[in-house]
Amino acid sequence: MSITSRKRRYSFGPAILDHETSFRVWAPTAREVFLNIDGTKVKMERDGEEFWEVSLSGNRTGSLYGFILDGEGPFPDPAGRFMPSGINGLSQFIDTDNFRSLDSDWKGIDLKDMVIYECHVGTLSPSGNYSGISHIADHLIDLGINTVEIMPVAQFFGTRNWGYDGVYIYSPASCYGSPENLWNTVSYLHSRGIAVILDVVYNHSGFIGNYLDRFGPFHSNWHRTPWGNCFNLDGPYSDSVRRFILENVRFWIEDYGFDGLRLDAVHGIIDTSPRHILADIGSIFSDLTEKLGRRIVAVAETDQNDLKITEKHDKCGYGLNAQWNDDFHHSLHTLFTGESRSYYMDYGAPEDLLRTLKHGFDYNGRWSQHLKKTRGTNFGEADRSRLVVCSQNHDQIGNRAFGERLITLAGKEAAKQAAALTLLSPFTPMLFQGEEYGETNPFLFFVDTNDRDIAMSILDGRRKEFESFGWQQNIPDPNDPETFLSSKIGWEKQKSSDGQEFLDLYRGLIGLRKRYVSGRTSDYAVSERTKPIMVSYRTGLKLAASFLEENIPFPDHVREILYDLPSTMDGSCLISSGEGVFMKKGVLVYL
Amino acid sequence: MSITSRKRRYSFGPAILDHETSFRVWAPTAREVFLNIDGTKVKMERDGEEFWEVSLSGNRTGSLYGFILDGEGPFPDPAGRFMPSGINGLSQFIDTDNFRSLDSDWKGIDLKDMVIYECHVGTLSPSGNYSGISHIADHLIDLGINTVEIMPVAQFFGTRNWGYDGVYIYSPASCYGSPENLWNTVSYLHSRGIAVILDVVYNHSGFIGNYLDRFGPFHSNWHRTPWGNCFNLDGPYSDSVRRFILENVRFWIEDYGFDGLRLDAVHGIIDTSPRHILADIGSIFSDLTEKLGRRIVAVAETDQNDLKITEKHDKCGYGLNAQWNDDFHHSLHTLFTGESRSYYMDYGAPEDLLRTLKHGFDYNGRWSQHLKKTRGTNFGEADRSRLVVCSQNHDQIGNRAFGERLITLAGKEAAKQAAALTLLSPFTPMLFQGEEYGETNPFLFFVDTNDRDIAMSILDGRRKEFESFGWQQNIPDPNDPETFLSSKIGWEKQKSSDGQEFLDLYRGLIGLRKRYVSGRTSDYAVSERTKPIMVSYRTGLKLAASFLEENIPFPDHVREILYDLPSTMDGSCLISSGEGVFMKKGVLVYL
Repeated sequence: MSITSRKRRYSFGPAILDHETSFRVWAPTAREVFLNIDGTKVKMERDGEEFWEVSLSGNRTGSLYGFILDGEGPFPDPAGRFMPSGINGLSQFIDTDNFRSLDSDWKGIDLKDMVIYECHVGTLSPSGNYSGISHIADHLIDLGINTVEIMPVAQFFGTRNWGYDGVYIYSPASCYGSPENLWNTVSYLHSRGIAVILDVVYNHSGFIGNYLDRFGPFHSNWHRTPWGNCFNLDGPYSDSVRRFILENVRFWIEDYGFDGLRLDAVHGIIDTSPRHILADIGSIFSDLTEKLGRRIVAVAETDQNDLKITEKHDKCGYGLNAQWNDDFHHSLHTLFTGESRSYYMDYGAPEDLLRTLKHGFDYNGRWSQHLKKTRGTNFGEADRSRLVVCSQNHDQIGNRAFGERLITLAGKEAAKQAAALTLLSPFTPMLFQGEEYGETNPFLFFVDTNDRDIAMSILDGRRKEFESFGWQQNIPDPNDPETFLSSKIGWEKQKSSDGQEFLDLYRGLIGLRKRYVSGRTSDYAVSERTKPIMVSYRTGLKLAASFLEENIPFPDHVREILYDLPSTMDGSCLISSGEGVFMKKGVLVYL
Repeated sequence: MSITSRKRRYSFGPAILDHETSFRVWAPTAREVFLNIDGTKVKMERDGEEFWEVSLSGNRTGSLYGFILDGEGPFPDPAGRFMPSGINGLSQFIDTDNFRSLDSDWKGIDLKDMVIYECHVGTLSPSGNYSGISHIADHLIDLGINTVEIMPVAQFFGTRNWGYDGVYIYSPASCYGSPENLWNTVSYLHSRGIAVILDVVYNHSGFIGNYLDRFGPFHSNWHRTPWGNCFNLDGPYSDSVRRFILENVRFWIEDYGFDGLRLDAVHGIIDTSPRHILADIGSIFSDLTEKLGRRIVAVAETDQNDLKITEKHDKCGYGLNAQWNDDFHHSLHTLFTGESRSYYMDYGAPEDLLRTLKHGFDYNGRWSQHLKKTRGTNFGEADRSRLVVCSQNHDQIGNRAFGERLITLAGKEAAKQAAALTLLSPFTPMLFQGEEYGETNPFLFFVDTNDRDIAMSILDGRRKEFESFGWQQNIPDPNDPETFLSSKIGWEKQKSSDGQEFLDLYRGLIGLRKRYVSGRTSDYAVSERTKPIMVSYRTGLKLAASFLEENIPFPDHVREILYDLPSTMDGSCLISSGEGVFMKKGVLVYL
């Protein structure tokens, strides 16, 4: 790596400039700041109103460093590119500017064509690291899955974490490998035709190992979420905190080459500024799409059912590409499991699924018994691909006391029907690692701390969270390494006959999606009634689903059955008798 | 008053229906609710999910009542129409539905024509009550002032209060008189051609005497302001809290006949719902304008300089009619006083006033040294009448340690120049009670409590607030009755020669405004340079202002001088010499 003529691309963090390495840190109210690098203290100079800077000769890649603020520290760099010893260690300078120098013909995947595969680095593969993701490329390609979504990797405490306790949003967690490993994985997946979305958390940062506020008011004094204080997006010094986040968006897309970001819980991003930061993120995605000449997507996780999130700027929206749609999951889940506690109380009738399929949002301004308020807006005629749906994801599986997947709760036949409804819905489908071969291992909530008090308070927190579901006793201890290990998926199950059966089904359904649904998600009609629920695409593909125990008259003509998925172990969804054709409980895919 | 066939017009509060009086209260989580009325307990029945109701025969106007919730109370009605014994007493039923039965030809005043007079009921008149406001009608008419703005009257603790400690937003403070008194005052002012705006506080409710949360989650668990927790606009049960506020908007406009509301500190109204409650308020104003057939205005107090607040709904705005513009006050105040502490640090150059006059906002996306962040948006070509400006108001005078008015701080000549700049600005001008005759009494912050601890904590709070201004010692005690009394304005000063001089000036300036500015506030140009600052209306009216000690070349031709307001006690702003015409420090109004 040679030192070439380069300019600083980010306000935050170190960068190689001409023949030197510049360290720059935001510490607006500090009186004196030292860079502590490889054991040496170097005085930093003010750079403008809020930043401090010092340049050292040569390429300092690999140097370990931190900052000493008014005599305290060293603290790791809030925008450090790596923390090789984890959250309690120093930052290491990695020249991520250099990553993007690898040019490729990669143009990304269009949102309308995406089939997303959500995974967690530590539990996805036997090696449990960034490189492990690469090894599933053949598997994904075989099934037709074209997009991987990686749960958050921002440096968190310990070595086992879902990722939502991340603090250092420019540092990929070192327990999974090096920045190069992550970058190589993204590049490799691109070379195999697979897009990669990264889950990022901009609503709060983790409690543990968090020294951000030593540098400046990174967090809001006024706005809180259940997970911690929000980033300071509208208080004093918020210009820089906003920039810290907005540059992070660009960082992952430009330097690492990610094809999109999944923005965690955007309803927790509270911002009273004239322009909401989500609108700024929407603008960055537009700008980067043009600049980079490849397709990228901003996907919001939200429980708000708010069209504004994915509406264009000129229609008063935030201009993000897609948003998660809980209504789809919850209506499916309650129909298959009969569960009705906590947020599931708002669902359970076939009408919920019907309304979701038809209108995009089930709760589109209706009163929610669970939230005790009106929920959602109309989704109108917005393209259905802007809603990301699933029959299971890390939250819906893992935020249960015992982390059971749908197949465990409702059985094999239900899991297959759910797959058909998800993969052939007009929405953008997302799978959770392992469901495609009928994985039965749970996905549990896990952490890794040596601090007994923290471990206990996390366990207590989980117990409290589950009270409204009636799950209280004997929940697995998140801090027990076994909890993590039992959440790893077991690839060997693919080889079982059940595994093969599921893989064939998923491969087939994804094939049908590509042939009949992708890119034409707005050309469909949904039945008025739920006996059965029917979706018909203008391309000719049709779905019928019944959740009733009794056989109901089947009101359509079937030219060719593509998938026949009854709720009983065998037989067909359709029964012909002298009185006509009747449909049994199940899902039928036909032309 | 006879019982006629009537329907409930508000979800909250008592109402006369057919031959009976209905009491209705929101208590969504209560298990048992009793109405305690005139000493009798009456069991209430659930009315829907969240309300309780009971109807008693006959017209119960005048009854004293409260609610007993699960054995506790009685607590006054959160939507009670009156509290004759003050905040610690019960509610009294007043049939405000009946107020509006008085029809009139009153059509209101157009925002573009408004000259607003801000007043505080307790200190405006010798009687210090609602009726006292009526007595200044002749005075206002003589000057050409057509709109009165009344500081908040929602029931607060004690008898001396600015009004921002109000808790019961449907109960006009009883220390000022009865609801009928207030309604009669509004009606009387209408009969004299004067519109009346009420200041209302929807960002928080007062700490003292506040039992609202006993009834239900009126306040947010998540969103805070410096003055207390926000109303719960987006959490569980927020539909009803929103309705409580939205019906209150309608209540003051329909029942009392107010011509508008001044919405206190809307930057403190935090609402993450898909549609901000300010947009809902904007819609109510549009609907009511149509329904009532008279002009009404929603005026937001805000420090955000955010065009969205007054932008129409179809342009992604909240659709309010006008917003306060601090930039105007602060640039004027600093030029006249030289003050530069706290928020005044952002102002002080003639350029600030020039930019405000030209663009509407001085801080339109510029970095604020005081706020330590970027402030504001562009105001664009939006009509200038949508910005309400003043050279003094209750906050700018009263939120000083010693409550000094501009005349006290900067002298008579400055006060006159400020009046000319305010009344002849393209913006909607607002005066503060007494400035029109050169009042020199202060307007101090005052409260009234018997609780020593509360009194001390309020005093401490004030001291803390003033730290950044360098005013700490010996500030008047807000709880001392003398503090209130010394803030009353002294009408007898009108008769002094100074008083007459000021009245003549204000009368003249308002006359000029009506002739040359009102209704044509967008047809004006502002000079590029500040030597002098020049505003010229297409109607021919011109202003020139210089804040420099030296004489500067005067670049315009003067046909007729209308007002010549130099900073020295006598002479003219203009000096002719062999070398041309020069302008002295001062303000010139000319054709």
